[in-house]
Amino acid sequence: IETKLPKVGTTIFSVMSQLALEHKAVNLGQGFPDFEPPQGLRDALTRAMNEGRNQYAPMHGTAALREQIVSKVAQLYGRKLNVDTDITVTSGATEAIFAAIAAVVRAGEEVIVFDPAYDCYEPAIELQGARAVHIPLTVPAFAIDWQRVRDAVTPKTRMILINSPHNPSGAVLSAADLEELAAIVRDTKIVVLSDEVYEHIVYDGAQHESVLRHPELAERSIVVSSFGKTYHCTGWKVGYAVAPAALSAEFRKVHQYLTFCTFHPAQVAFAEFMASNPEHYLELPAFYQAKRDRFRALLAPSRFKLLDVPGGYFQLVDYSAIRDEDDLTFSKWLVEQGGVAAIPLTPFYESAPGTRLLRLCFAKSDATMDAAAERLCRL
Amino acid sequence: IETKLPKVGTTIFSVMSQLALEHKAVNLGQGFPDFEPPQGLRDALTRAMNEGRNQYAPMHGTAALREQIVSKVAQLYGRKLNVDTDITVTSGATEAIFAAIAAVVRAGEEVIVFDPAYDCYEPAIELQGARAVHIPLTVPAFAIDWQRVRDAVTPKTRMILINSPHNPSGAVLSAADLEELAAIVRDTKIVVLSDEVYEHIVYDGAQHESVLRHPELAERSIVVSSFGKTYHCTGWKVGYAVAPAALSAEFRKVHQYLTFCTFHPAQVAFAEFMASNPEHYLELPAFYQAKRDRFRALLAPSRFKLLDVPGGYFQLVDYSAIRDEDDLTFSKWLVEQGGVAAIPLTPFYESAPGTRLLRLCFAKSDATMDAAAERLCRL
Ligand SMILES: CSCCC(=O)C(=O)O
Ligand SMILES: CSCCC(=O)C(=O)O
Repeated sequence: IETKLPKVGTTIFSVMSQLALEHKAVNLGQGFPDFEPPQGLRDALTRAMNEGRNQYAPMHGTAALREQIVSKVAQLYGRKLNVDTDITVTSGATEAIFAAIAAVVRAGEEVIVFDPAYDCYEPAIELQGARAVHIPLTVPAFAIDWQRVRDAVTPKTRMILINSPHNPSGAVLSAADLEELAAIVRDTKIVVLSDEVYEHIVYDGAQHESVLRHPELAERSIVVSSFGKTYHCTGWKVGYAVAPAALSAEFRKVHQYLTFCTFHPAQVAFAEFMASNPEHYLELPAFYQAKRDRFRALLAPSRFKLLDVPGGYFQLVDYSAIRDEDDLTFSKWLVEQGGVAAIPLTPFYESAPGTRLLRLCFAKSDATMDAAAERLCRL
Repeated sequence: IETKLPKVGTTIFSVMSQLALEHKAVNLGQGFPDFEPPQGLRDALTRAMNEGRNQYAPMHGTAALREQIVSKVAQLYGRKLNVDTDITVTSGATEAIFAAIAAVVRAGEEVIVFDPAYDCYEPAIELQGARAVHIPLTVPAFAIDWQRVRDAVTPKTRMILINSPHNPSGAVLSAADLEELAAIVRDTKIVVLSDEVYEHIVYDGAQHESVLRHPELAERSIVVSSFGKTYHCTGWKVGYAVAPAALSAEFRKVHQYLTFCTFHPAQVAFAEFMASNPEHYLELPAFYQAKRDRFRALLAPSRFKLLDVPGGYFQLVDYSAIRDEDDLTFSKWLVEQGGVAAIPLTPFYESAPGTRLLRLCFAKSDATMDAAAERLCRL
């Protein structure tokens, strides 16, 4: 069988997790916490199963969970969503991103993405017969050069895909960035897809500039978030998409036939837990900032140079003082010889800029961080 | 925004479940049990959550669950699968069907489907820019007329999509049917997609003729099944796809970017429960046959004519003695005036044959069946 996705191999996350296992390396690669979701959340899920919530959930998600999302979005971003029409619960943010692209983008159209770009974007675009137009972020700030975006827009541009806080760099978009974006998409048919899975993880007192804060953009955007990243349960695979009614209707047409609905007991559990623990996501910045700062302090004596981390739970490090080789080679050496699994940036570029950077996940317990830091400081 | 799926509305399952709620009707529409998954399975899921299985599962499913599937397929169908390459766990059978179609079918190609066809097939085909070629099943046996299939095959045919036991009719394919299919696809590029989500629910001592029993077909097929249908937990959304290594590799390229992986604790729970309760699916035919027979006995005094039910958990009934109107009109009347929600067949046809048939789900407790039967016998 001839492949429809000639560029796709096994995702770097699976490759690195597998190598970490084989070499008994400390795994700072794939982005997941090595600690557990709140006990109260797990107990709520058990209760949901034992109270008969085991059959199909509504296609767009349970009402109780959608209501919690409405409250959260109102509280944090000042936007009033319609609980019936604007929210769709999905089987992880990955499904939401795929469904958004499949619902909106047609064969022959173009989608602007910013490199390094999370690796699920391009295959979803290619499966529509469309083309990803890659714009590199600046280095080392990983900012968007808006002039390059203006130059890249054509009559075929159907979507601009942004991601803030950004994976892998941790860069965050500012209110001024959203203004630039709004000016570009105004009076066009361009839909914005905003991947905000790290929305609750921004540091140093900054606020997350959600597209949902920007009324004009929100009217033409699909915003994706993740319960897995927020509640430390990436393996539960629950996410959601927010979009105005007409756009949501198209989104749901695809979602309905992609997975139909999402694991029901978890939806009940998230709704219950959010209602009784409204502080959880408010405390997340401090929780992860302590981890970030601890990790940076541990690596301070190493020969890695630490880039700034405004958001997300990844630390980019420059390894050029240790070895002068490309990041794929270095990350392979690091997991085999150095005992630490990290993520190279090259797989997230159409045309890699040859930076000497690796991504390390610090959503880890103290013991894991200590073990990793000890190894990293030896190099 | 212009729609990419002009034919798609809200699925009839959601529509009918909603109407059932509004009219306090007994819901025999959407296909789900109104009883619970085994307590041991739920307890295993709770244990998995409390033993730290809350982060990403492997992209293709946990090893333990894939091993259970290998054992089952060997035991029931005599086929030896490769645990690493041949099985992919998915977020429900719906995701598996979408991924199979997206991985194999290209723009401009054709997929043969048999009407009445489960409603997720055609949108998945259309999103590839491909075309569904509809062949009606015979009525009332809901058998495939293989001459029509031979006539429908063209150089553009890329896939034939079969479904046995068949939803909505309950018809099952025979070994002779599989021979016909094998002869048609031999020496072509046609891939078979076999939707076998009711594989464990066949009656009257018959055996399920899985494509996996047929070595020649198995080499060019993707076979889809569902834990939700087998373990009474349709809301858990775990299914899987079996295919030879090369086909699985293409399938996984899409799955990897559609949902990446599936709810981890449920995978742990299914593996554990299957290992310690290998009799569960062996007992399923008798379990559902008792329900089928009870339901048919209850409806015997009614004016509905009952069609044969060789498999699955749906009863087709002919209502022509009650009202002479199309099935959409009748099912609307039935939920509003008769107090029972059922599924009309018209939505599953490209060109509805004007039969006077409705689908009733009998995966229900005695009390639900009794309440429904009392209402249905009054008409
Ligand atoms: C889907 S596995 C990758 C998880 C993740 O978000 C990351 O590591 O960037
Ligand atoms: C995905 S909702 C429909 C469930 C089902 O399999 C059916 O009712 O046929």
